[in-house]
Amino acid sequence: MKILVINSGSSSIKYQLINMKSESVLAKGLVERIGIEGSRLEQEVNGEEIEIEQEIADHGVGMELVIDTLTNKETGVISSVDEINAVGHRVVQGGKYFDKSVIIDQDVKEKIEECATLAPLHNPPNLMGIEVCEELMPHAKQIATFDSAFHQTMPEEIYMYALPYELYEKHDIRRYGAHGTSHKFVAKKVAKEMSQPIEDLKIITCHLGNGASVTAVKNGKSYDTSMGLTPLEGLVMGTRCGDLDPAAVPFIMEKEDLNPQEMDDLMNNESGLKGISGISSDMRDIGEAAAEGNERAQLALDMFVGRVKKYIGSYTAEMNGVDAIVFTAGIGENAIELREQICSNLDYLGIELDSVKNDVRGATTEISADESNVKVYVIPTNEELVIARDAKKLID
Amino acid sequence: MKILVINSGSSSIKYQLINMKSESVLAKGLVERIGIEGSRLEQEVNGEEIEIEQEIADHGVGMELVIDTLTNKETGVISSVDEINAVGHRVVQGGKYFDKSVIIDQDVKEKIEECATLAPLHNPPNLMGIEVCEELMPHAKQIATFDSAFHQTMPEEIYMYALPYELYEKHDIRRYGAHGTSHKFVAKKVAKEMSQPIEDLKIITCHLGNGASVTAVKNGKSYDTSMGLTPLEGLVMGTRCGDLDPAAVPFIMEKEDLNPQEMDDLMNNESGLKGISGISSDMRDIGEAAAEGNERAQLALDMFVGRVKKYIGSYTAEMNGVDAIVFTAGIGENAIELREQICSNLDYLGIELDSVKNDVRGATTEISADESNVKVYVIPTNEELVIARDAKKLID
Repeated sequence: MKILVINSGSSSIKYQLINMKSESVLAKGLVERIGIEGSRLEQEVNGEEIEIEQEIADHGVGMELVIDTLTNKETGVISSVDEINAVGHRVVQGGKYFDKSVIIDQDVKEKIEECATLAPLHNPPNLMGIEVCEELMPHAKQIATFDSAFHQTMPEEIYMYALPYELYEKHDIRRYGAHGTSHKFVAKKVAKEMSQPIEDLKIITCHLGNGASVTAVKNGKSYDTSMGLTPLEGLVMGTRCGDLDPAAVPFIMEKEDLNPQEMDDLMNNESGLKGISGISSDMRDIGEAAAEGNERAQLALDMFVGRVKKYIGSYTAEMNGVDAIVFTAGIGENAIELREQICSNLDYLGIELDSVKNDVRGATTEISADESNVKVYVIPTNEELVIARDAKKLID
Repeated sequence: MKILVINSGSSSIKYQLINMKSESVLAKGLVERIGIEGSRLEQEVNGEEIEIEQEIADHGVGMELVIDTLTNKETGVISSVDEINAVGHRVVQGGKYFDKSVIIDQDVKEKIEECATLAPLHNPPNLMGIEVCEELMPHAKQIATFDSAFHQTMPEEIYMYALPYELYEKHDIRRYGAHGTSHKFVAKKVAKEMSQPIEDLKIITCHLGNGASVTAVKNGKSYDTSMGLTPLEGLVMGTRCGDLDPAAVPFIMEKEDLNPQEMDDLMNNESGLKGISGISSDMRDIGEAAAEGNERAQLALDMFVGRVKKYIGSYTAEMNGVDAIVFTAGIGENAIELREQICSNLDYLGIELDSVKNDVRGATTEISADESNVKVYVIPTNEELVIARDAKKLID
């Protein structure tokens, strides 16, 4: 069985074709700059890359190019599009409707559209990807996997905000969280690594990438997560501010004469590491600049680290303990020093890193000291594999 | 030496006259509804109350009435206004300018006015109280004690938000905190109770009233606090939402067609316990309704408790441990069950309550179990006494 995994953005399509028998990636690629000058496709097969530059007017054209490339006699990996048994789509926001992956039908599409008010930048292009695939691969089942689904187990007192209750009733304003596919994957993986049933564990998963969130996984279920109504809340991110006095929002809008959309843009795209440092939204740049003595880069770094620490403490209190902490995603898997800093001075919580074991990038590794009460792991995330597995389960 | 302590609000003046020799309250009172129909003064002396109803057009008239009442031959406690050696004023926001109490001069008044942008509801009436007292008691030194001063020791990486740095430079947008006078008072008191130097302790002080905040006090200094740029951030309060996805703010503004001022009002005055429960902003009403099975009151209660727990965990991580937790202010001193709930299931952090000792209201008491690694205390706050002590120190 071969499953195509699609992550369709506003001007891009990321894809992986996975052979489910071996769970191996046959091909992975990216179409970018759809509808913009300089559009292109790049694909990697067994470490070999090809690149195609051509005009790609819309997602339909982009998806056709993906299929052409996958089935191309020379550079392709399948002989016909019919070999694709199912397509698994990443959908950011499933709102209150979806607590697991589903086979897509008309009703599902309508709900994804309805949830677009909660993820206006993500759900519409996600839906576009679905519709294009339905048209081009009518023989294949389309499956949706939601970034928010894993967090649907949060208790009411945790997902509610202390706003007028009517706002929840009218506009579904509550915490939804994101990165659910990743948090779920690494939580399951760490339980396996520890040879313990996930139902018996308290796990804190730190998905630290350009977007970043922390989740408290209690007995295998998401109990709390740092992202909220939108992916803005919580940690300091590449360009997102994360936690902030909510009264600062109208305050800044008045001082700077911004409308709601401009304010949202400021908090989502001009803040975080980029906003503090004034240099870059990329943690590698920040790390380098800080090492060279740039004070604002150092400040950005310290704030990033401090915020993760606070969430670890907070979730440890909420769960009354923690058995394992997992670092994943771009920063989590690769930033050795940063993991060291996050875990430093937490011995009161029973957390102690082994600096030798911690000298690792992108490989599943236990990095805690032998005497650490809390096990700490690096676990590379694999959201595409989760999406593919969910799709397989649904069509079996 | 006799010191008059003044807390001047937009339509009220709270006052206490304190004899500094014995630190005893000679009289305390409240002028309310200044400039509004039904204005009145009430004063208490040795448990005996008097009440005067009359038109009080402005703060000047109100302050004159306070002095008249204090010096009244029958109900008064001093024979002449000259017996008042100094007046200590509570000022909410001292911004970056004040890390301790100061004798008021022209420069201080200008800075209080400047900081009014950060506390538009509080600083202007605070300043009005100062100016009225200067006029009516020119013989007495006027001293300002700032709610934000204690928190000026927070490190940069904690007081900064992950917003564009220019917003900090242009508008001083950062965390300031509030209730500083109270947090400082109970932190000092608990160190004394424990017979340990405050410099050696890690203390978490929970000031839980209609407004509520938590502070991490490390080595006697405020290290982090839950209120931010304004007193909105942090805990669930009577009518304030506390922590919230900042992106929810523009989201709600657009959905409900609110301007920044209306949104600020919604978050400050229509949210919190009141907003969730739809019943009341008063914790006693919430507790009663929850006990009678009201689900939204129960939700409000659970959210309040959960939020305090999260801050305790968060600050324990930031300080790498905690030696003592203090409950103070209206709810903190009186809500027995609520303290029980906050401290339940925190044995991983070494926190264990003794339910018999915890059966106390408004009296300094250690309420932790003997085996608890972390000492837990109820300590009644006394902000007026701190203001008076600061004033005394400054004029001595």
